[in-house]
Amino acid sequence: MIRGGLVITAGEEIRADVLVDGEHIAAVGAPGTAEHWHADEVIDATGHYVIPGGVDAHTHMEMPFGGTHASDTFETGTRAAAWGGTTTIIDFAIQPRGGALREGLDAWHAKADGVCAIDYGFHMIVSDAGEQAVAELDALVDEGVTSFKMFMAYPGVFYSDDGQILRVMQRAAGNGALAMMHAENGIAIDVLVQQALAAGKTDPRYHGEVRQSLLEAEATHRAIQLSRVAGAPLYVVHVAATEAVAQIQQARDDGLAVFAETCPQYLFLTADSLAEPDFGGAKYVCSTPLRSADHQASLWKALRTDDLSVVSTDHCPFCFKGQKELGADDFSKIPNGIPGVENRLDLLHQAVLDGRISRRRWVELASTAPARMFGLHPRKGTIAPGADADLVIYDPSARHVLSAETHHMNVDYNAYEGRAVTGRARTVLSRGEVLVDGGQYRGRAGHGRFVPRGTCQYLD
Amino acid sequence: MIRGGLVITAGEEIRADVLVDGEHIAAVGAPGTAEHWHADEVIDATGHYVIPGGVDAHTHMEMPFGGTHASDTFETGTRAAAWGGTTTIIDFAIQPRGGALREGLDAWHAKADGVCAIDYGFHMIVSDAGEQAVAELDALVDEGVTSFKMFMAYPGVFYSDDGQILRVMQRAAGNGALAMMHAENGIAIDVLVQQALAAGKTDPRYHGEVRQSLLEAEATHRAIQLSRVAGAPLYVVHVAATEAVAQIQQARDDGLAVFAETCPQYLFLTADSLAEPDFGGAKYVCSTPLRSADHQASLWKALRTDDLSVVSTDHCPFCFKGQKELGADDFSKIPNGIPGVENRLDLLHQAVLDGRISRRRWVELASTAPARMFGLHPRKGTIAPGADADLVIYDPSARHVLSAETHHMNVDYNAYEGRAVTGRARTVLSRGEVLVDGGQYRGRAGHGRFVPRGTCQYLD
Amino acid sequence: MIRGGLVITAGEEIRADVLVDGEHIAAVGAPGTAEHWHADEVIDATGHYVIPGGVDAHTHMEMPFGGTHASDTFETGTRAAAWGGTTTIIDFAIQPRGGALREGLDAWHAKADGVCAIDYGFHMIVSDAGEQAVAELDALVDEGVTSFKMFMAYPGVFYSDDGQILRVMQRAAGNGALAMMHAENGIAIDVLVQQALAAGKTDPRYHGEVRQSLLEAEATHRAIQLSRVAGAPLYVVHVAATEAVAQIQQARDDGLAVFAETCPQYLFLTADSLAEPDFGGAKYVCSTPLRSADHQASLWKALRTDDLSVVSTDHCPFCFKGQKELGADDFSKIPNGIPGVENRLDLLHQAVLDGRISRRRWVELASTAPARMFGLHPRKGTIAPGADADLVIYDPSARHVLSAETHHMNVDYNAYEGRAVTGRARTVLSRGEVLVDGGQYRGRAGHGRFVPRGTCQYLD
Amino acid sequence: MIRGGLVITAGEEIRADVLVDGEHIAAVGAPGTAEHWHADEVIDATGHYVIPGGVDAHTHMEMPFGGTHASDTFETGTRAAAWGGTTTIIDFAIQPRGGALREGLDAWHAKADGVCAIDYGFHMIVSDAGEQAVAELDALVDEGVTSFKMFMAYPGVFYSDDGQILRVMQRAAGNGALAMMHAENGIAIDVLVQQALAAGKTDPRYHGEVRQSLLEAEATHRAIQLSRVAGAPLYVVHVAATEAVAQIQQARDDGLAVFAETCPQYLFLTADSLAEPDFGGAKYVCSTPLRSADHQASLWKALRTDDLSVVSTDHCPFCFKGQKELGADDFSKIPNGIPGVENRLDLLHQAVLDGRISRRRWVELASTAPARMFGLHPRKGTIAPGADADLVIYDPSARHVLSAETHHMNVDYNAYEGRAVTGRARTVLSRGEVLVDGGQYRGRAGHGRFVPRGTCQYLD
Repeated sequence: MIRGGLVITAGEEIRADVLVDGEHIAAVGAPGTAEHWHADEVIDATGHYVIPGGVDAHTHMEMPFGGTHASDTFETGTRAAAWGGTTTIIDFAIQPRGGALREGLDAWHAKADGVCAIDYGFHMIVSDAGEQAVAELDALVDEGVTSFKMFMAYPGVFYSDDGQILRVMQRAAGNGALAMMHAENGIAIDVLVQQALAAGKTDPRYHGEVRQSLLEAEATHRAIQLSRVAGAPLYVVHVAATEAVAQIQQARDDGLAVFAETCPQYLFLTADSLAEPDFGGAKYVCSTPLRSADHQASLWKALRTDDLSVVSTDHCPFCFKGQKELGADDFSKIPNGIPGVENRLDLLHQAVLDGRISRRRWVELASTAPARMFGLHPRKGTIAPGADADLVIYDPSARHVLSAETHHMNVDYNAYEGRAVTGRARTVLSRGEVLVDGGQYRGRAGHGRFVPRGTCQYLD
Repeated sequence: MIRGGLVITAGEEIRADVLVDGEHIAAVGAPGTAEHWHADEVIDATGHYVIPGGVDAHTHMEMPFGGTHASDTFETGTRAAAWGGTTTIIDFAIQPRGGALREGLDAWHAKADGVCAIDYGFHMIVSDAGEQAVAELDALVDEGVTSFKMFMAYPGVFYSDDGQILRVMQRAAGNGALAMMHAENGIAIDVLVQQALAAGKTDPRYHGEVRQSLLEAEATHRAIQLSRVAGAPLYVVHVAATEAVAQIQQARDDGLAVFAETCPQYLFLTADSLAEPDFGGAKYVCSTPLRSADHQASLWKALRTDDLSVVSTDHCPFCFKGQKELGADDFSKIPNGIPGVENRLDLLHQAVLDGRISRRRWVELASTAPARMFGLHPRKGTIAPGADADLVIYDPSARHVLSAETHHMNVDYNAYEGRAVTGRARTVLSRGEVLVDGGQYRGRAGHGRFVPRGTCQYLD
Repeated sequence: MIRGGLVITAGEEIRADVLVDGEHIAAVGAPGTAEHWHADEVIDATGHYVIPGGVDAHTHMEMPFGGTHASDTFETGTRAAAWGGTTTIIDFAIQPRGGALREGLDAWHAKADGVCAIDYGFHMIVSDAGEQAVAELDALVDEGVTSFKMFMAYPGVFYSDDGQILRVMQRAAGNGALAMMHAENGIAIDVLVQQALAAGKTDPRYHGEVRQSLLEAEATHRAIQLSRVAGAPLYVVHVAATEAVAQIQQARDDGLAVFAETCPQYLFLTADSLAEPDFGGAKYVCSTPLRSADHQASLWKALRTDDLSVVSTDHCPFCFKGQKELGADDFSKIPNGIPGVENRLDLLHQAVLDGRISRRRWVELASTAPARMFGLHPRKGTIAPGADADLVIYDPSARHVLSAETHHMNVDYNAYEGRAVTGRARTVLSRGEVLVDGGQYRGRAGHGRFVPRGTCQYLD
Repeated sequence: MIRGGLVITAGEEIRADVLVDGEHIAAVGAPGTAEHWHADEVIDATGHYVIPGGVDAHTHMEMPFGGTHASDTFETGTRAAAWGGTTTIIDFAIQPRGGALREGLDAWHAKADGVCAIDYGFHMIVSDAGEQAVAELDALVDEGVTSFKMFMAYPGVFYSDDGQILRVMQRAAGNGALAMMHAENGIAIDVLVQQALAAGKTDPRYHGEVRQSLLEAEATHRAIQLSRVAGAPLYVVHVAATEAVAQIQQARDDGLAVFAETCPQYLFLTADSLAEPDFGGAKYVCSTPLRSADHQASLWKALRTDDLSVVSTDHCPFCFKGQKELGADDFSKIPNGIPGVENRLDLLHQAVLDGRISRRRWVELASTAPARMFGLHPRKGTIAPGADADLVIYDPSARHVLSAETHHMNVDYNAYEGRAVTGRARTVLSRGEVLVDGGQYRGRAGHGRFVPRGTCQYLD
């Protein structure tokens, strides 16, 4: 039993005690009632929040990219997630070019199986959307892989053309899957990349300049129209630009099943970081890129109006030494990605303190909405009888400083290095088992299980 | 204890048992856990929904209008509400022209005190917004009357000019109250009324024709701009027109604290009813007026996009005989109002079955959102430990026909006469006390208490 | 004959010679052809533009306001206009409160008759829109007074309520007249004025602060909706705010007959001027007020997109000494108005040089569009056979400095004091008669005649 | 001299006589003045309009498509144009895949040289936008080929990808050329085509169904964004869909240099024609396709708001026998195109009579605007001293029936067969020479000359 805390879900803030039975939540009771309950163990949450464990719907553990791999394995990455209060991740299995979806999915299962600290699911990246891949989609939905990501960027790597996208979306319209989209016009961007490099502009700052907002907005609009033609829902990942938000808002105003996420890096960092000297900007190279501060304001507004529904990390860490340095002479060779799976909840809690979002919205963005979006609710993402006992006892007044020196992610820098935040997970439970408590790690590799997912619950 | 039902709140749908202790909910537990709890009385909810009691944020019991009074007293009206699964109403106290707010509030307290079947609160209608009235506002907020309604319609009766509205809104910006607005350009409408009557157009159908959509949209826009100038939040009542919805959507897209409700009559009836022969249209005379079917589609969409946040009834019954007939020769003399406090939950549940909204959204629109909007949450509007035990065991498959013959409202017609709906409250509890059960009324006049309200919880 | 110039109209830029016969243009010919024509007098326009004389559709000569009168009489004001290349004005006759339109029109005819240097027409200000006034409107249209101005500002002075506005618009829908609107929510503004004064804010700068952009936009939206209800066209005067432009753009996108003007003061001055020390801001007090620089950008854009169709001056001069000083202790007592009838063409030509508008657009905004808008085309506003020979030979490279020391308006300051501009009317003809030539005034009081106008030509 | 007509230009309607000297207009004079002029020949235009000859900015004479050629040669096509009052066409030279722009331009010069009845210019179709082609663009501008068309449709034929489009646009931003775009998402459409054919849907009606409005709107939006990235102006050809118009309107509201045309077939025909029995729908197969009637309303509105600036024909005739029949078993093999160069002026004049556009707008859409858009003004597109004497004496009351039996285009059907229209060119002059008069053809092959064009005049 967890006693004395303020239980916060997306819907309520109540003083209540939470009774856990085995892996599940058994009951939620008013303090006066619950004190009569029998419990083998009582965790005191006085002065703390009790919230559902975070759900990070966008991570890339061990992802191959540009000849290297993301530096967090499923083992290190899920452990870091647990430290940060996140108890479920949804990672991306990747179809090999020329291969089957199944092949990619099996490979990712092999990577994750038996090593994860927390529960995990998979999205499928469709990087070669031929007839074969389309034919495989139904089976994956049946196995609980209910979302497929495609890329309008990265020609020659992950890129799908509009016809391929349309075919996959048509299939998704039939089997209930959710199409996820990296929405940037990669064909046009590649022209600008080549022109920049030809002009000697090799510094990381040009990564941001060539990936223009208009080209994010254009692709976002295109993805929306293709989804309308297909009659399928759409989820746009890592939205960064005001103009892209406007496209999503318009679609949602029209009542379309269009959803989107943004990430902490777009909310807390700006393109100024890309201009850090001595190639320091490389740490912040990710796509979509960091943008100017005025875009941040649009993103925060959209989080309040629910035009952006989820905050994920797009956690994809590459060490500065040896990895980011691959692009020392050519920004286009810098592995794209920023670490963050450990910092998401705390950064967003800081936004609560800064008056940007409410506490309930904090829980919703970080846990409930991704759980609903990707078919995990109410097993994940809430505190209710019958739900998995994925719980965080959160200390809203603990002040700490984000730093590579203290973080648990396997990467040699922290994108928020030196930033002081207030609020921290004190105790983290996954299916009733304590993973972290008071600065001690008590979890284990292999506790985490694969979670087959249902379809998007915002379509009911 | 309520056992075996599907507990539905705005946030969750779970199989759970609900333990009530006195007037409050004590705990919510998984079936396996709860069966060990002790309970004096067990209500079986198998095959039923367990939902929070309805909150109707817009009723006018005994309201004086055009020389007569709404035909439901607080006694009859709240009893009818209970029959329909609504366990809280917020009615409107009216400032007398030339008098103090206090005077009006005292009068309404006197009407309601000791006779209500369910809990109730008051909004305040400011019909004479002079310095004195503005000065009184703070005190009312302190007493739990935290919302003030003004009218851009009804010149000479309730009408406030833009300067008066601005002054009240400025005060609301200071004390946290919510300004509610009847948004129709009454000055322009009165010209059209006079022109219609002068042209011999006296039938009720002309009530709808002169109160044009554009004049609702105009006033809605104006109210929004005035609220921006004042820096105050705004709640637009009984939105009926596509063009008005568009104004609200724009405001919400801009991140403004603008909210709105619609009512069942705009969702389920059209202007065709106003053209019923033999003065039959008079039954449907209310303002804003019923509109054509295409407006309905806009309202349903806006309920899905949350541009409309609440469904209230604007319950204001006048008998056809003797009351509506006052306007037999002149539509402008027909008392404005439609009964509906008893039918709201069932009509909206029918919309669930018709695929227009989800079950959770049904609960949200009818109970949770009005509770939050008007400062009653989590005491009202949800099922959670500590909340008032205002609960409805709802039978989702009970088919019945709406009719004046069977309804419990004190009015000689039903606006939805003959309409078959599926779904009905079987058992209704207010603060733990059973008011209705299986077709028997077990409530009593005086059980209902005045509920002082906090300020709007969507502004946190 | 005018030989050797570049003839610029709204439609063409051609090298051509212009043959004048009596009061009219007889022919326009290619240089090679025209040299064979016989002409009693040849004006050399080599190196100059030949443009149609300016049409200033918004002036207030001798207007009574706040206990004083605009300092330019029809004699001095029209002479100054001629100096500046404007050969037609449309001034505003004012209905006296409690009196007939006819009474006001007769009074204005009496002021202007026999003293004007250039041709003139009248709009009618409806300041008391009762049944009597509405009944008079048809007759005025027949006499060539085809536009009626109403005010949503100035309660108690010129203010019409929405019902009065609707009635006048309905009549305009019937007789082809154009409703002109001063669109500011004067009722709300007066509240803010009183609050500012009560707070000791008496300086002219507060004139700008209380007349908020949102209240201009609100009234603009309202006027548009009322015109839609009436089925009448609308012309919004002196648009100053970005948000008001947006309303007009939306209406025009929807295909409505909505038109608008702005004035040089909004294009070339900002609210900073209102904050000039030592009550100097009073010189810039006009309504709508000067706004911040970002609004200027919106206005220029709207001039390019034709959402603003006309640039008029709203010339309404009050001397700083003795007139503006009436409000030394109370900004609300400062007579509202800015002089400018003499400077309009040169300021707009400077915008041509600055790349903001093309030469043809310059002519269109200053001459052709107002002529069309108010039923004077092709008699005024163009250079074509049969048109009045109202012509300006304009030196595009003459550099001069705007100043009260050199201007010809009867007012003791110039709103653009010290501003250097390039471009100046060298020779000005009205109906074939030279009024100004090379710095010499050759016109005469009484040359100018009243011009009855047809209805708006943008509605064909 | 042309005497007694009503001279109508985009800017004026005046009673005037027009003096022609050799190939040019020498003067325009008031009737009283002009009667003194000497003229060798006088054409009586009493009761007629005198308008500038039509400019059709979009024709495809002898165009190769799908293994056949458009059935009108430059000789037959320009003769038909002359019959219809069009005195200038701008046709499209096509770069061969794998070849140089120069090669294509030379080929088209060879086709047109010495055989045309009227003057002509060329746009260049860039169908293989490699480095070589981009490098050639400047030279073409210097030669008077100042506009380049690209296709987002027809993959494998004319299709350019977004990177190629961006590169050409960037070059256009540098040399002043105007990028023209066929805006349909051909990649997505081809998927739908294949799916339709696979489902046995081979009838012409499916041509319309697969080329969805949303895919036109999508490409329109994409083209606009690419033009913004490049900083280049854009001209969208043959706009057919409401949603595409909305994109253009938005761009123009934002002040962007975005222009568009529509064609008579979208204004006067609907998708119903595509469903004509016995393969009759093939006559109406063109891309963008004919759409439903509600799209027509949007197009007419956009012509009035100037969001559509030009009406061209996209004249591309294929005989039903032997050509359209190539697609008898597969709609995707039907040569795309509709004849119309002869009918444009009369169809648009009918729209004048129907109250859709004014007479001046008729002239503007059909002559002045295309002349300005493509750098031909004031030589073409107006009636002014110095302009080419391309003149049409138009009989506004001549009633006739459009039919393949009487038309002069070399194609065995007329898309408007049987449609009665009022208005017809009586006398047509090209550079002072009479081509058509009173039903007699007096023109000759070879009169028409290539006209080098300047750059777009709407960018000044």
